[in-house]
Amino acid sequence: MINEQYKAMLQGKSVIRQLSEFATERGKEIGYENVFDYSLGNPSVPVPSEFNEGIKEMVDTMSSMELHGYSPSVGIASVKDAIAKSLNERFGMNYTGNHIFPTSGAAGAIAHAVRCVTKPGDEVLTFAPYFPEYNPYINTSGAVLKVVPANTVDFQINFEELDKMFNENVAALLINTPNNPSGVVYSKETLTKLADYLYKKQEEYGHDIFILSDEPYREIVFDGVDAPYVSKFYDNTLSCYSYSKSISLPGERIGYVAANPKCTDAELISVICSQISRGIGHNCPSSMMQYGVARVLDKTSDMSIYEKNMNLLYNELTSLGFEVVKPGGTFYIFPKALEDDAVAFCNKAKDYDLILVPSDSFGVKGYFRMAYCIDTEKVERSLPALRKFVKECYGR
Amino acid sequence: MINEQYKAMLQGKSVIRQLSEFATERGKEIGYENVFDYSLGNPSVPVPSEFNEGIKEMVDTMSSMELHGYSPSVGIASVKDAIAKSLNERFGMNYTGNHIFPTSGAAGAIAHAVRCVTKPGDEVLTFAPYFPEYNPYINTSGAVLKVVPANTVDFQINFEELDKMFNENVAALLINTPNNPSGVVYSKETLTKLADYLYKKQEEYGHDIFILSDEPYREIVFDGVDAPYVSKFYDNTLSCYSYSKSISLPGERIGYVAANPKCTDAELISVICSQISRGIGHNCPSSMMQYGVARVLDKTSDMSIYEKNMNLLYNELTSLGFEVVKPGGTFYIFPKALEDDAVAFCNKAKDYDLILVPSDSFGVKGYFRMAYCIDTEKVERSLPALRKFVKECYGR
Repeated sequence: MINEQYKAMLQGKSVIRQLSEFATERGKEIGYENVFDYSLGNPSVPVPSEFNEGIKEMVDTMSSMELHGYSPSVGIASVKDAIAKSLNERFGMNYTGNHIFPTSGAAGAIAHAVRCVTKPGDEVLTFAPYFPEYNPYINTSGAVLKVVPANTVDFQINFEELDKMFNENVAALLINTPNNPSGVVYSKETLTKLADYLYKKQEEYGHDIFILSDEPYREIVFDGVDAPYVSKFYDNTLSCYSYSKSISLPGERIGYVAANPKCTDAELISVICSQISRGIGHNCPSSMMQYGVARVLDKTSDMSIYEKNMNLLYNELTSLGFEVVKPGGTFYIFPKALEDDAVAFCNKAKDYDLILVPSDSFGVKGYFRMAYCIDTEKVERSLPALRKFVKECYGR
Repeated sequence: MINEQYKAMLQGKSVIRQLSEFATERGKEIGYENVFDYSLGNPSVPVPSEFNEGIKEMVDTMSSMELHGYSPSVGIASVKDAIAKSLNERFGMNYTGNHIFPTSGAAGAIAHAVRCVTKPGDEVLTFAPYFPEYNPYINTSGAVLKVVPANTVDFQINFEELDKMFNENVAALLINTPNNPSGVVYSKETLTKLADYLYKKQEEYGHDIFILSDEPYREIVFDGVDAPYVSKFYDNTLSCYSYSKSISLPGERIGYVAANPKCTDAELISVICSQISRGIGHNCPSSMMQYGVARVLDKTSDMSIYEKNMNLLYNELTSLGFEVVKPGGTFYIFPKALEDDAVAFCNKAKDYDLILVPSDSFGVKGYFRMAYCIDTEKVERSLPALRKFVKECYGR
């Protein structure tokens, strides 16, 4: 019979996806160019041209078996080595290819990482505001996701609430910096404090506590912001990366888990991930995509548009009197709504063809997310609509 | 802490992979061309040239967002429609795109299909000889794989043993035709009898019983053999397909689940699979690979070499007095060993640089598998070694 657990999940449709569908429908009425659709975090800039050129060159020069053949179950050695080398140069790490496990994007990376360091019933803590997909990612693995309430002052970590929730069943923390939805980058101070805290807890409970560091936005960092590399701060870190955002390849499903060389069983993580893969049916991402990204490891898409859009929105929002923490990266901004009920606020915005995502599903009430990975010209055209909405609905 | 279940799996290393590694090592000593490596089922013929041409054309003509952007969570509509149309034309089915769920190969297809129609603790039956990876595929999903002993007369289904093992906890049967490792194709009579049996059992137990039909070898069928389409025989069938073998793309991880339009909740299977994906971190196979295969749905690699190799081996084996069922497809043959202990038999063969896989891990004792997806020239050169081995070790 059809599995009732998954059937029930059909009821809990993603708020983001529903809003995106609403925007598409509205676009059919008034032209999609007139819908200020801030719902989806879908990169809007092209892949670096070197990637596409690389694909064509590989098709022309590599043998069919070499290019399209089975990759080893732990990933293609030359690709793993190249990723390790690039991370070492950029972040002063000491990875070898053995610490790198290629995956189908960050979702695949988290699916492997969480199964690697938890057993059924273990708790995984994450910090609000957080990406709502963490719920299915963690809860269907057998572990249980618990959400630490937000620090709404600056969206760094709320250590007081963390300490209240910590207990011996916590096997891992799932963190995300630069953060979706807040756009905030965890500071060096935050990461140092977190590492000190976890080292203490590991000693107190006598077992490993891992950080699963979800880093798809690692390369989208704005001028003047320092985005520290999480794994530098804490040995038991598994970095979960995706090329979806940095080189605009979300549909190609390519990323990796990088195990800190000093973490427990560091040399085993990659082979254990390959065992996990057998169970969940991954068996490596596409060979062509593994080879493809290895050729452009030090490239990114031209992401200057995201910073331009952020500044336009941040300036407008602050001048309209919104409380908003300035994003340090990503393509999200997370202002406080003008009434307590963010769902009501976002519903009213729809009348002005502004598609905003209420914060409730991100684990905090009273805020909204705007994904500004859209054309700058459209952001500019949305500002009068934003002003009109605020004036007519909230008298500002 | 590192998950002990997966850590333990490291001990149970695949026999096939170990033999393949042995062959590679031996190759370093005597030259790989002198190792008659029949261990791995890795396609040896190139992808159809239209596939590679299609990739280049897409890179040149499609926008980056269109080609590399997020695919819908149920897969790309035009790809799903094209697959449905092709299956309808070839097999007289009535699929729509809604019945097709693109996956990362057959492994990904089975991972989704089994979670779709079982709940933890349910039994899934398969028939020996069977692909050993079915153990992790099924057992890590929460369901339990049970193996029905082989019918060693012709490697069709052993209905007597099936009936002995059947009980109300059986939620699905996982079948594989053309079969790895036997090479046998289930006949129309076998499939009719199986369907009749399952319809009766569904009525008896008052719940659905699904067939999960693992079909990566569906296109590799030899002259004069009729390979019936499983889903034509039984409504509650989920066909699990892979392009790995038919167009030699094993590293690109692309396949699908096709839900019989008459199965229970047929219109929901694909969306339920997309929910399952959220939990196991797939979120669709590569967009480029989805588009890529959609352009070559009616092509296959030139697979005539496999039939040529099969005939060479079948004739030699029978003339040496082996008991062997003639394969109807795939690139495997599964003869009876010349002593009861197949492991001992295959170990002796190693001294003649013949890499044969003992049948024990396929769920039947006393046989061995040869994967003849290698150059015909090498098959020819292996025959004297085979003769020498049989003569010196078994006096034939």
